[in-house]
Amino acid sequence: MRRANDLVAGWMRRAGMSVREDAIGNLIGHYSGHGPQSAASGTKGKILLLGSHLDTVCDAGKFDGPLGVILAIACVERLRQGRFRLPFDIEVIGFADEEGVRYQTAYLGSRVVTGTFQQRDLKRKDAEGVSMAEAIRRFGGDPTKLREARFDPRQLLGYVEAHIEQGPVLEQEGLAVGIVSAIAGQTRLEFNFTGRAGHAGTTPMGARRDALCAAAEFILAVEHYAGGKPGLVATVGQIQSEPNVSNVIPGAVSLTLDVRHQRDAARRAAVARLGRMARQAGAHRRVRVTSLSVQDTSAVPCSPWLSGLLERAAGHHQRRTVALVSGAGHDAAVLARMTPAAMLFIRCQDGISHHPAESVRIQDVRVALTVLGDFLGLLAESVGRNTTNQHE
Amino acid sequence: MRRANDLVAGWMRRAGMSVREDAIGNLIGHYSGHGPQSAASGTKGKILLLGSHLDTVCDAGKFDGPLGVILAIACVERLRQGRFRLPFDIEVIGFADEEGVRYQTAYLGSRVVTGTFQQRDLKRKDAEGVSMAEAIRRFGGDPTKLREARFDPRQLLGYVEAHIEQGPVLEQEGLAVGIVSAIAGQTRLEFNFTGRAGHAGTTPMGARRDALCAAAEFILAVEHYAGGKPGLVATVGQIQSEPNVSNVIPGAVSLTLDVRHQRDAARRAAVARLGRMARQAGAHRRVRVTSLSVQDTSAVPCSPWLSGLLERAAGHHQRRTVALVSGAGHDAAVLARMTPAAMLFIRCQDGISHHPAESVRIQDVRVALTVLGDFLGLLAESVGRNTTNQHE
Repeated sequence: MRRANDLVAGWMRRAGMSVREDAIGNLIGHYSGHGPQSAASGTKGKILLLGSHLDTVCDAGKFDGPLGVILAIACVERLRQGRFRLPFDIEVIGFADEEGVRYQTAYLGSRVVTGTFQQRDLKRKDAEGVSMAEAIRRFGGDPTKLREARFDPRQLLGYVEAHIEQGPVLEQEGLAVGIVSAIAGQTRLEFNFTGRAGHAGTTPMGARRDALCAAAEFILAVEHYAGGKPGLVATVGQIQSEPNVSNVIPGAVSLTLDVRHQRDAARRAAVARLGRMARQAGAHRRVRVTSLSVQDTSAVPCSPWLSGLLERAAGHHQRRTVALVSGAGHDAAVLARMTPAAMLFIRCQDGISHHPAESVRIQDVRVALTVLGDFLGLLAESVGRNTTNQHE
Repeated sequence: MRRANDLVAGWMRRAGMSVREDAIGNLIGHYSGHGPQSAASGTKGKILLLGSHLDTVCDAGKFDGPLGVILAIACVERLRQGRFRLPFDIEVIGFADEEGVRYQTAYLGSRVVTGTFQQRDLKRKDAEGVSMAEAIRRFGGDPTKLREARFDPRQLLGYVEAHIEQGPVLEQEGLAVGIVSAIAGQTRLEFNFTGRAGHAGTTPMGARRDALCAAAEFILAVEHYAGGKPGLVATVGQIQSEPNVSNVIPGAVSLTLDVRHQRDAARRAAVARLGRMARQAGAHRRVRVTSLSVQDTSAVPCSPWLSGLLERAAGHHQRRTVALVSGAGHDAAVLARMTPAAMLFIRCQDGISHHPAESVRIQDVRVALTVLGDFLGLLAESVGRNTTNQHE
């Protein structure tokens, strides 16, 4: 993270921005607005946030996160090269720890800037026993000043994030970019299956309380149930078996379940149904099943205003546009709680993400950059017109 | 292992034995035979081996292994207290590493004394990267002298091992001890399921190549298939998923399969059938499945001669005896390749083993000790008679 922030900070400075890091390590480049509209429109000092996150998962690709930050920097670079002046400031933000790999809780950077960070999360320990507070300190941040890093919503115009789609729709539709209508809600749960360990050679099949068999039935039930519900995705991503020895019947299994849908009611119904299925899978094997909700994020609609401007901008570059639901969570979903937020998705190859094979075409990145540039123009116009309207 | 061997060596010495450790760390107590029969019968210098193993699995009970060694020591202690003389020597052996937890290969000690140890196993690495050769050296053994630790089969009368049943039959039959007729054959395999990792939020269910779902289908197939075949046990004991992160679809899963049956043909048929099931579970998810046989041990019949003597001895203490098939592998199965081998099983609570709840009744241990003592008398008689017959 230190190396990533230092590298990107250099790019921000070369693009004409002044750069700062906040208390949790979000990297923020500032590009001041100028021009007569700024003062006239009353948006002087207002800030449009552009960006995404700089962290990623283990064994990941290169584009999930960083591409959005780099596109934002490139936008500013173009403004500066063209000496374009906007009636608002731009801040390009590279969010810290969106994925939540180290502390099993996501959106750390965006939760800090929106004032929704939970102080108790500072006590979480990573795999080596290092608390989050300590990790922030070691990085050079300040865990005692997270509250002060909150943005003032009255100062914000909105937040726009470009990101790879991480799904197959744009590729299927033959489109370089798409506008996100909503970000799916997400529930993360942990399930524990407790049976009884026993000797693999001497315990007859009928006398077993095999926690892994119960877990396996649940994993298949999840796959089958989600496969039959349009728009629903459900994943058992993590599994741990105890004692995990080849000649011992598994006595305990813990696993994670990740459930997402654009409609909160459909997601909640799925979580309840899958919880019952887990208990059923345990019951007829005398395996006890407990579950714990680790995260529960509601679906977030994007700002129609900003999305409409993005759509108009995209319309200049492709014959038609498509509205996408994001199955992945994004910093934009957190930002949407305090300011209008919108997202531009970029086609990625085979929809592959969170994998080294993650890939985007350079032509598509070029389209995204032009769309974002045009969007800034339309936004400046919109802000001016709105203000003009206000003054009429 | 150092502490266990030192502790048990002290008990052996107090029971009147001279104690040595061989090159792999088997602990051997020697109790010389005496008396006129010895010379007359031509069994002078012949050795009856009594024992079991001193190691165990992680989170195990107290009895799987050590009980057999301690019973053998107690037998010798009784002989010495009663000043009984037998026409053969007794060696009590506490075998090293029967379970194979550290190097994923079992019966290290008994394979050394039978000369069936594979030299290439010395290169195996444990979880910390320590080779078996190095581990033997650190313990105080000598990996270059394993071949010399082999027993001379011409010197051996046989091997008798007492062990907890680790199953439910004796408890169901209301018997303290039982005689083992055969030790089931065992196949250990490793399966690898290779699908494709992907984003848990954005990859539609139909586009997934989820290695864990394929593995789950296989685990259930194993449970179902073995449940329908009398005498067959099949267990997936170990599972590892990659990348094992809650928001990433599992791209690769490795797991172990342990299959046992008293008839080798039934076991081999099961292994072949389950292998096909694994490939089927992968095929309709575009998950590649490979498997590797890690161990393949044939079923071993026990010595009818020694088992008959054990049965007569047991008949003095319970109205009837029952012949059991051991589902667990034992050092006796390895020893049976070079000398007549027999096993006495002791009832254990709920058939639980490889678990801290492993438990035996002290009365049953007392019965086992008396049966073993009587067996030694019957064996001395049998040896004398056989010799007398030869001289007639």
